[in-house]
Amino acid sequence: MITLISDFGLADSYVSQMKGVILSINSSSTIVDITHKISKFNIQAGAFMLASAIPYFPKGTVHVAVVDPGVGTKRRALLITTKQGYFIGPDNGLLILAAEHQGIIHTYELTNPNYMLPEISGTFHGRDVFAPVAAYIEKGVKAAKFGSRIDNPVRPEFVQIKREKDYITCSVLHVDSFGNIITNLRKGSIPRGTLNIKIQDTSLRLKLERTYGETKPDDTVALVGSHGFLEIAINQGDAANKYRVKVGDEITIRK
Amino acid sequence: MITLISDFGLADSYVSQMKGVILSINSSSTIVDITHKISKFNIQAGAFMLASAIPYFPKGTVHVAVVDPGVGTKRRALLITTKQGYFIGPDNGLLILAAEHQGIIHTYELTNPNYMLPEISGTFHGRDVFAPVAAYIEKGVKAAKFGSRIDNPVRPEFVQIKREKDYITCSVLHVDSFGNIITNLRKGSIPRGTLNIKIQDTSLRLKLERTYGETKPDDTVALVGSHGFLEIAINQGDAANKYRVKVGDEITIRK
Amino acid sequence: MITLISDFGLADSYVSQMKGVILSINSSSTIVDITHKISKFNIQAGAFMLASAIPYFPKGTVHVAVVDPGVGTKRRALLITTKQGYFIGPDNGLLILAAEHQGIIHTYELTNPNYMLPEISGTFHGRDVFAPVAAYIEKGVKAAKFGSRIDNPVRPEFVQIKREKDYITCSVLHVDSFGNIITNLRKGSIPRGTLNIKIQDTSLRLKLERTYGETKPDDTVALVGSHGFLEIAINQGDAANKYRVKVGDEITIRK
Repeated sequence: MITLISDFGLADSYVSQMKGVILSINSSSTIVDITHKISKFNIQAGAFMLASAIPYFPKGTVHVAVVDPGVGTKRRALLITTKQGYFIGPDNGLLILAAEHQGIIHTYELTNPNYMLPEISGTFHGRDVFAPVAAYIEKGVKAAKFGSRIDNPVRPEFVQIKREKDYITCSVLHVDSFGNIITNLRKGSIPRGTLNIKIQDTSLRLKLERTYGETKPDDTVALVGSHGFLEIAINQGDAANKYRVKVGDEITIRK
Repeated sequence: MITLISDFGLADSYVSQMKGVILSINSSSTIVDITHKISKFNIQAGAFMLASAIPYFPKGTVHVAVVDPGVGTKRRALLITTKQGYFIGPDNGLLILAAEHQGIIHTYELTNPNYMLPEISGTFHGRDVFAPVAAYIEKGVKAAKFGSRIDNPVRPEFVQIKREKDYITCSVLHVDSFGNIITNLRKGSIPRGTLNIKIQDTSLRLKLERTYGETKPDDTVALVGSHGFLEIAINQGDAANKYRVKVGDEITIRK
Repeated sequence: MITLISDFGLADSYVSQMKGVILSINSSSTIVDITHKISKFNIQAGAFMLASAIPYFPKGTVHVAVVDPGVGTKRRALLITTKQGYFIGPDNGLLILAAEHQGIIHTYELTNPNYMLPEISGTFHGRDVFAPVAAYIEKGVKAAKFGSRIDNPVRPEFVQIKREKDYITCSVLHVDSFGNIITNLRKGSIPRGTLNIKIQDTSLRLKLERTYGETKPDDTVALVGSHGFLEIAINQGDAANKYRVKVGDEITIRK
């Protein structure tokens, strides 16, 4: 199975061109759109959306992501293999959040023209590079055929966690339409026991709950959302507004 | 085959998460989107859209509908079996119009956790409950496995027809972009012969025609649209405007 | 494989009804949406979008296009067979640009009711005529079964090229979001050697380049875009604005 996510929108034929290329190579491919309405060039929003969707796809799924402001420059094209599947897209951080979530095995730079379209445009690697690679992976071509392994993919600010002796500093990855604050701290990295959290100037002591409903209305709650990241929310309220938090802000947690 | 209809929009990854769940259970599933742009929480609009689309799908199709303002409350989750297929969704009236159109056989409350995701969120039963049930039905699991039969699903106002000795009172289900008035009276319930129709303060005597074109321009016409409901229209005109009718208004027909 | 393109939008269930009809006839059909957001009734925009997408689909693909302001009138319904595939839609010029691009073999008028839905509405031939024909072609029904050959499909202004002794006059088919001017002159019809181009009052001498990047920033460049048509662009600039060109304007090229 192949998933597609991009900032192409649905008014143009770009997404269909990628599907045509995939189905030309592997006519039995099943293709699922995650969304194509990522805001233009917003790598962080694309990374979060991809990370939030992947837990629901079966093992072996090939995820193709195209939010690619650097297309046509020297930015590399990547294939990342993980314990659960494959990620294909530009080397700009778009894939890392989701791929690390699944456990990265290897990262390859896509350089083998045998698995690309004969003509590579300067503007649309989604169709000319990423789509054919996805189709060939689904057909069983080994990852090492597409190019050489690299060990330094771009890791953007928004996937970085600072770990000091007593503190973990994470950042706000996304604020959803309810005002829930979604951090970039993954389930496995959350300290055990009561969490001492500092958001802006407010200090909070919170247990990690399972759902919003385990607290009273208007109480602040910490939980792991279905996206797999630490989330700070207010039961029936707007946490981002109360704590004056926006995407990119730091949140500190005492270990 | 499985169809999906919801009010999720296309900017988020929710629809793709449902597809991922379905394809994780049944990798050979064919999934068709009816639309995901139902206006938020508008159960009646979702019910009409679903009812208008289903006549064109093959026997055995599984229809999953999610316009679900009551998710997380005690509202029940339903599976309805009909003479033509299956309907899965919340017990808020969303499914009834379409299911009755096909002829309801049985209604089941979805309670068996073996056919749901291991963790049921309080906010997204489309993914955690309805999607897996649809995939298991397609795989051949019998309806009775999912829960117990019930006989009192919610029947909203907009599916109800009042039948008195001399009159049938139906209501306006939908006004389309041409101003055609679509009622909730199904083909099989329309009295034979000339129809004596009262809309607001106007009395009309109309024969049931086959198409708009069987009358002159500006004439009012009664017909059964491709959705299967009695429709009152003006050939090349705006009936809703002329008769000052809006969704929910009553229309009386003398038998 | 079947592709769909239309001006139906995604808020209504029309597209899904076409898919239901196709899958009712051929349950193993693979259907790809090109786009359904063509601006209403804009045949030229639909024709360009279709022509730009088709090079990426495999041989034998069946393309169904519905931008159909004349539905319900006496306008004919067409099946066009080409060297690469099939085109189905209204006889209003929508198909011609793409079909000529692939090399038209024959054109048929769709008249055989055996391959349509039992009831043909006056408003939705996409569902009642074009969708079933597409499904039957995929199932192997021969083109001649659907109706008689015709030799005079509508060829709209925007596909016409005037060829005089010394000049070719083409027209502006599309201006994309970068201001690139896409003409209706196909790759095979472009004169060889240096191009002497007259746009509005400006005369240009341009070589045909392979990509935008082969010229300096702000230089005007002629190339064949991935859509297969002659394109006049400014490297990192807005050609349509500089040369005051809009869709439909004539461009003259000296042979």
